[in-house]
Amino acid sequence: MSSQQVSLEHGEGGELSHKLLREVFVSRFGHAEESKWDAARLAVPEGRIALTTDTFTLQPLFVNGCNIGKLAVAGTVNDLTVSGAVPRYLTAGFVIEEGFPVRDLVTIVDAMAAEAQKSGVRIVAGDTKIVKRGTIGGVIINTAGVGVIPPEFDLHPEAMREGDAVIVSGPIGDHAVAVLAARGELGVMTDLPSDCTSLYPMIRRVRETGAAIRFMRDPTRGGLATALVEIAEDFGAEIEIEQEAVPIRPEVEGVCEILGYDPLYFASEGKAVLIVAEADAPRVLQALRETEEGKEAAVIGRIVGRGEGKVLLKSALGSRRRVLRLQGMQLPRIC
Amino acid sequence: MSSQQVSLEHGEGGELSHKLLREVFVSRFGHAEESKWDAARLAVPEGRIALTTDTFTLQPLFVNGCNIGKLAVAGTVNDLTVSGAVPRYLTAGFVIEEGFPVRDLVTIVDAMAAEAQKSGVRIVAGDTKIVKRGTIGGVIINTAGVGVIPPEFDLHPEAMREGDAVIVSGPIGDHAVAVLAARGELGVMTDLPSDCTSLYPMIRRVRETGAAIRFMRDPTRGGLATALVEIAEDFGAEIEIEQEAVPIRPEVEGVCEILGYDPLYFASEGKAVLIVAEADAPRVLQALRETEEGKEAAVIGRIVGRGEGKVLLKSALGSRRRVLRLQGMQLPRIC
Repeated sequence: MSSQQVSLEHGEGGELSHKLLREVFVSRFGHAEESKWDAARLAVPEGRIALTTDTFTLQPLFVNGCNIGKLAVAGTVNDLTVSGAVPRYLTAGFVIEEGFPVRDLVTIVDAMAAEAQKSGVRIVAGDTKIVKRGTIGGVIINTAGVGVIPPEFDLHPEAMREGDAVIVSGPIGDHAVAVLAARGELGVMTDLPSDCTSLYPMIRRVRETGAAIRFMRDPTRGGLATALVEIAEDFGAEIEIEQEAVPIRPEVEGVCEILGYDPLYFASEGKAVLIVAEADAPRVLQALRETEEGKEAAVIGRIVGRGEGKVLLKSALGSRRRVLRLQGMQLPRIC
Repeated sequence: MSSQQVSLEHGEGGELSHKLLREVFVSRFGHAEESKWDAARLAVPEGRIALTTDTFTLQPLFVNGCNIGKLAVAGTVNDLTVSGAVPRYLTAGFVIEEGFPVRDLVTIVDAMAAEAQKSGVRIVAGDTKIVKRGTIGGVIINTAGVGVIPPEFDLHPEAMREGDAVIVSGPIGDHAVAVLAARGELGVMTDLPSDCTSLYPMIRRVRETGAAIRFMRDPTRGGLATALVEIAEDFGAEIEIEQEAVPIRPEVEGVCEILGYDPLYFASEGKAVLIVAEADAPRVLQALRETEEGKEAAVIGRIVGRGEGKVLLKSALGSRRRVLRLQGMQLPRIC
């Protein structure tokens, strides 16, 4: 099948749909038993699950260090991970354009299977719709994810207090710059790969330290600034960030300077922001730095109070400005 | 907001995304608490869950008796229901085209909220991506669903045996004909509404009878024929259907005769196929017929053996032909 193209017939629910499902998806995701039912039937322990969804419209589909399949798995694994869950099961909903090469679809599906394996996650249910040529840029993927929240480890945003450390697990904005470069737009020329990766293995290490983690979020669409503003507003915390402490690679700084963007709004796809009890910050930092993904982790700020939710950015010279959600849009779009 | 159009800025993760999320989605789905986290955190009992996903690309978005939002909720509720689960939680992933009227989006989201309520299902997590004008026909919706499989009620396809009854909960193909009519293509003129509805309330009634249900499936894309072939092949059952016993409305028969289609391949979106122990068939039929959705339910065939999975269609004159999955496609496409 791999020399072929996806056709509208593949979306009709008949013999060709069945063949595509079996040869491309079931063989790679290994959910032969589940695919006999309209829904996968799965064991969970009593307690709480985490449930999330994200649709991926990455353009181009293949970026240095990342493709839409890898991103679709990592993105949802990460949403579960930062919500305090152990990622367990994913669903995958594909919308595929007529004429899309089956070979490219296989590359994408292989990347999904490989990325899922890193976190011990199973892709247990899927769906495929085929749409007309020239509409969606090849393929759109939705993933939804179920994780299990272990009662012995949970996040406690309500316990956030003055002095808590704000940690970021590594340099921000790599994904945004890699996408800009892959588009060949605006003269961005760089070999910087996207940071796209699954955060669960790294966060598992942090959890094993027993540190009191108040909250986590991954700074994707909207960047670090938006992630921090959301934490501040949703849980009534005043956060102060030291501008100089935020890790940013020279390539990202360079692109932002030339194009007039603020890297605080640039998406990462393999970074976590952690709010951690003051006393536990050193061991969290150490645990992060012992992993490949977290080796450039840094404390970037503190919780300075509760009440009105806001984020302040303190410059090297000591001046403070309020950080807001992204207003309007940064061009070009990268989601 | 309702006089406005969706713009690319609504997809950037910033202030406008936040506003769209809050005013259109959170206010209607009522998941304010869950939306503070990257994943909703939900209680489940110990045991098994059902997990499924489906992406909806309905065109046009509004059809007699159905819109893409109602369909997106009913479709996933139905996949959970026929898998033996009590539907509990849904996620909703929207891809919206630049320029799409917020008013239409609100109509769609209202339909989703109303449909979810019929089964007591909560929409607890969502995502929105905005794509360029003129690409996806307005909006594409993915829903994933989690249901809980009650241990005291389960399906047992392995127990299928000769004599088991095959029941369909009502006339087939209404949805396909309603979509054809809404497209104004091929001269199909009819007021027949889509049968789009959530099956859970009806199936709950059937379950309360305590009948031994072997298996259920909803005959959507690919129609009744494909649903039966999948059951036969997946669980090694020989199924014989009485052609005259399959309920089909005159409007659907008429469209198929004129256009040369086979209604057995026409999608329904509010019907269930049930395989039921022979002795329990009468009370299942009675329970179905006591509901509005199931009042035209009928026994359409029997399991005639185990082993090679196949479906036979017996005509009024007693001849038998083998029923296959849809080969190629029926034009026009209706998914």
